[in-house]
Amino acid sequence: MEKGNIMGGNMKIIESKRIVNVIKEDLIRVVDSLNKTPKLAIIQVEGDIASNSYVKNKRKLGAELGIIVQHVLLPSDTKQEDVINITNQLNNDKDTDGIIIQLPLPSHINERVVLDNIDPDKDVDGLGTTQIGYLNTQSFKTLIPCTALGVIIMLQNLTNLEGKDVVIVNRSHLIGKPLQVILTKENATVTLCHSRTKNLREKMKNADIVITGIGKAKYFDKSYFSDGQIIIDCSMNRGDDGKLCGDVKVEDLNDLDVEIASGIGHTGLFTVLSLMINTINAKKMKEI
Amino acid sequence: MEKGNIMGGNMKIIESKRIVNVIKEDLIRVVDSLNKTPKLAIIQVEGDIASNSYVKNKRKLGAELGIIVQHVLLPSDTKQEDVINITNQLNNDKDTDGIIIQLPLPSHINERVVLDNIDPDKDVDGLGTTQIGYLNTQSFKTLIPCTALGVIIMLQNLTNLEGKDVVIVNRSHLIGKPLQVILTKENATVTLCHSRTKNLREKMKNADIVITGIGKAKYFDKSYFSDGQIIIDCSMNRGDDGKLCGDVKVEDLNDLDVEIASGIGHTGLFTVLSLMINTINAKKMKEI
Repeated sequence: MEKGNIMGGNMKIIESKRIVNVIKEDLIRVVDSLNKTPKLAIIQVEGDIASNSYVKNKRKLGAELGIIVQHVLLPSDTKQEDVINITNQLNNDKDTDGIIIQLPLPSHINERVVLDNIDPDKDVDGLGTTQIGYLNTQSFKTLIPCTALGVIIMLQNLTNLEGKDVVIVNRSHLIGKPLQVILTKENATVTLCHSRTKNLREKMKNADIVITGIGKAKYFDKSYFSDGQIIIDCSMNRGDDGKLCGDVKVEDLNDLDVEIASGIGHTGLFTVLSLMINTINAKKMKEI
Repeated sequence: MEKGNIMGGNMKIIESKRIVNVIKEDLIRVVDSLNKTPKLAIIQVEGDIASNSYVKNKRKLGAELGIIVQHVLLPSDTKQEDVINITNQLNNDKDTDGIIIQLPLPSHINERVVLDNIDPDKDVDGLGTTQIGYLNTQSFKTLIPCTALGVIIMLQNLTNLEGKDVVIVNRSHLIGKPLQVILTKENATVTLCHSRTKNLREKMKNADIVITGIGKAKYFDKSYFSDGQIIIDCSMNRGDDGKLCGDVKVEDLNDLDVEIASGIGHTGLFTVLSLMINTINAKKMKEI
């Protein structure tokens, strides 16, 4: 692909939508070839406004791909015990292939307890203790957490990971931890950074690939990056101007020779896509 | 502690034996205070000569601390099914607090299958899928793999880990992976290196703490290190002279201002000690 952009600089925006569309076409064919329609159940306890649009995106993509998405919407004062009971019903339901509990949950519900109550074989967010174990032992039953899987798919479309130096600025179960495991398995060398990391700027500047997820609008300016890098920004923040943006101040990087995915239309798309990939894989695994 | 060593240089050998002895005294008191003697079962399938001395060390330390160590020694042609059956008996035995399967196993036995068959609450090597999940989710039930736990105990006796740059050259379940998780939780910044890592020398030289486990006798000379570092070498190799040694060419580092643990009398001691700590913890957890 040609270098350069409409601003006249060298920065190249990663063609996330194009990559996602190609994979979508594939998935439609895969779903069509299955003997039964896959089904994903989303358990959502009301209380987090942003979750509504995330769930909406999941339902929309499910419909596009031919995957049944059951949305179980519960009031904000739902007891933990009731979330457990509903999950158990779905665990036992032969027709349900994947189950996710939409995060964040209200504070009276213990996230770890309800996540660990999902049948590991249906845990398509990959956040239960058993799935985290599977990821580390490279079990064939592994369902990789969706944002991490999305980043991996994106990177595999862009480069050969072997021997690459990767800096990840996020140590959560959703992003940093699973990416660390997978990228190391792919023979990349990963440095896992966080709020207590010293010389973060220097570490980021020296990497081949930088992955961020700090949740701070436009925090990383040009001084954190260098020519030749691939930059994947997993955050979706509200900027001072009220608009959605990532952790990276993209407009500041125009003159750098980097490939970047940041803000709307990038990792978010891959995350939802990955949820559907996991649902299809969970269904296929039942048949092994 | 004063700098300098008998060779007249600045290198300081970490006082592993002294630290281990202090902890041993503590453990003797803890075991003595328990209402019942803890019991560890070691299942060993014959075939690996080095395992004999490792098992011997475990039995010896158990005796010193007042922990019962049951040694189940099986012939090299033992079937996987029989290892499973024996493990099941020990899983169900109320008096057994900890179970380990001595590695490596003969090639006709699937390591992952037999490790995952150990009751996670008795998995004192911390190598089963559930325990690996626990480690990542920071469950109170976590039993940290013994070599990794030993390294952490050693480091906590030497320095404050927060903000430290740590380079680990090993990505196994026994050393690199668990250390990556624990050190990140302790707010250190970890770079996980391996055979495909580029510029390894530079990465090691720039770290505050270097942990190695590559299994190559005296591979790392002075050029890989720099003043001010803590170096923990987890390997036990047979050198050209037939003597046991680590990955680091210790005699070459004499003039460097580093603290180092390498070769006999260091991580090995901590590893065996950690197994006993895990056995005591597994026993205590039963009572919660």
